[in-house]
Amino acid sequence: LTTRNSAVSEYTERDLIARIQQRLPPAPDWLLVGIGDDAAVVEPERNRVEVLSVDAIVEGVHFDRAFVPPEAIGHRALAVNLSDLAAMGAAPRLALLSLALPRDLQVAVFDGIADGLAALAARHRVHIVGGNLTSTAGPLTIDITVIGTVKRRQAMTRDGARAGDELYVSGSIGSAGAGLELLREDSGRQTDDLGLTTAYLRPEPRVRLGLLLGRNRAASACVDLSDGLADGLHRIAEASGVGVAIDEDKLPIDQAARRLFDRRGVDPTVAAMSAGDDYELLFTARPRLRHRLGAALRHGGAPLTRIGVCTERRDLTIARSDSVEPIASGYRHFR
Amino acid sequence: LTTRNSAVSEYTERDLIARIQQRLPPAPDWLLVGIGDDAAVVEPERNRVEVLSVDAIVEGVHFDRAFVPPEAIGHRALAVNLSDLAAMGAAPRLALLSLALPRDLQVAVFDGIADGLAALAARHRVHIVGGNLTSTAGPLTIDITVIGTVKRRQAMTRDGARAGDELYVSGSIGSAGAGLELLREDSGRQTDDLGLTTAYLRPEPRVRLGLLLGRNRAASACVDLSDGLADGLHRIAEASGVGVAIDEDKLPIDQAARRLFDRRGVDPTVAAMSAGDDYELLFTARPRLRHRLGAALRHGGAPLTRIGVCTERRDLTIARSDSVEPIASGYRHFR
Repeated sequence: LTTRNSAVSEYTERDLIARIQQRLPPAPDWLLVGIGDDAAVVEPERNRVEVLSVDAIVEGVHFDRAFVPPEAIGHRALAVNLSDLAAMGAAPRLALLSLALPRDLQVAVFDGIADGLAALAARHRVHIVGGNLTSTAGPLTIDITVIGTVKRRQAMTRDGARAGDELYVSGSIGSAGAGLELLREDSGRQTDDLGLTTAYLRPEPRVRLGLLLGRNRAASACVDLSDGLADGLHRIAEASGVGVAIDEDKLPIDQAARRLFDRRGVDPTVAAMSAGDDYELLFTARPRLRHRLGAALRHGGAPLTRIGVCTERRDLTIARSDSVEPIASGYRHFR
Repeated sequence: LTTRNSAVSEYTERDLIARIQQRLPPAPDWLLVGIGDDAAVVEPERNRVEVLSVDAIVEGVHFDRAFVPPEAIGHRALAVNLSDLAAMGAAPRLALLSLALPRDLQVAVFDGIADGLAALAARHRVHIVGGNLTSTAGPLTIDITVIGTVKRRQAMTRDGARAGDELYVSGSIGSAGAGLELLREDSGRQTDDLGLTTAYLRPEPRVRLGLLLGRNRAASACVDLSDGLADGLHRIAEASGVGVAIDEDKLPIDQAARRLFDRRGVDPTVAAMSAGDDYELLFTARPRLRHRLGAALRHGGAPLTRIGVCTERRDLTIARSDSVEPIASGYRHFR
């Protein structure tokens, strides 16, 4: 009766939930009551504290359906949450999914979102234990709550940095921002810079890196770069009561991203530091405990670059070719 | 610089979060990291399992700002979630709040929503441990995840009813539906039927009743009536593999609601059974264990009415003055 090019409004809630459920692996044994009752019932993990985060992505604010395929929407919706857990050093465990769907959304799009979400969830062993579906007269909105676990003393916060601690960032910065620029052009789909567009469409949350940093107590403070490096530096500095001094030369800006920013006539350093969506980790480490970074360097799945140091002086600066400049505040207007 | 009649888009995210935080009580000692880091960190409760639920309310689908005041929007957003916990017999513990705000939303409205939410949270000792704010080009959307706790053997599900079990409903049904009808008219604000409009605007989740039913193992199955009695009966019947036979005469339909439905020329029984938003509990109890209902009857905060019985035959029927009619399916189209 209904086909893959029909709208979600032609389905019952139960049908749509079943389409998600059929993409999920068998329930883990700690899940006592799963999807289908008023609420899920879960056995907590022994000797661990719980780490909880919620994040929403809204069409028109966080993604544009014109160039973000459904599967990437599902992937990103979960990735932004897993990135928060990674920044705390937590192992992801479960997620609750709340979708507000335009009534005319094609069920093929719904399926694609569920595919992207389920694939990333399976890779990180996150079980989707419950959710909610509603229609909306507005944009597609995906709200996900994730819960992870960590040993109490291994949880990383943003307030532990001290003057003298060194600042590290994982992977590269600005790649997702450059990828978004490429996708915004019609040429986006044909670009050779697949690394950039992939960085935007399918960011890899640094879960393993976060776990290794936490487990080895290698980081004194950690945040994820959902809102860009400048914002992340401000958050650590403010929470820890330190300043930061970073070196432009050290910033791990992808060469392809740098070329793209150059072509646009924008300063690559400024662009890469203010671009969001990178989902890398920014952390601080005591120089004398640098050896603790070994496991994270070898098995963390991303290069780590030392970009600067925390300072007694409470200002945030970047040393450029022949000047030292302040790093603009990360406090963003509500958008 | 900004005033109470300015829009949320004139504020930073941090300002808006602070406006919520200032309405919250001091953090409980099990909250190790609260609002302000990448995620919250929580010590789980010993010897309890966790009950998790997520629910969203969307302007234009679940409420209309023309007649639902901001404080009632905040109240309802949390109440629908607490009702899910009540149906499982769980004690509420914490909530995560995700708001998608139209950029032109007045900050006074934002404050009102936060007031309604914080007041209900305080009453039920639910601590808001984290959240997310985003703007949207669409309707105001409030997404809440709640977590409660319960002793493993005291969690109530919907699949435990057996033939012969008696069906009970708390409070009255149809009141919220009638209240919504009144509010939809302009006269809503001037009505004398304050009980009805309050039932819609500020439903009282039956948390205490759910706890007592679970603690005394008094109910064999339980659901909440967010989507109406007919829907609730279908959910218990299907999950438990039983039929139900109820008596029209027994239904606790509020007299004022009955009069309103009569005036509209609609069948009060049909209207009250299909109206949503009541947030009462529907549960089943073994006749020989009826004494276990004592505490719930005395201290549950709501009258309990026996409305029928579960049957071996798998059909759902209602006995009316001179006929026995089937109860229409609760499976709703996605809306």
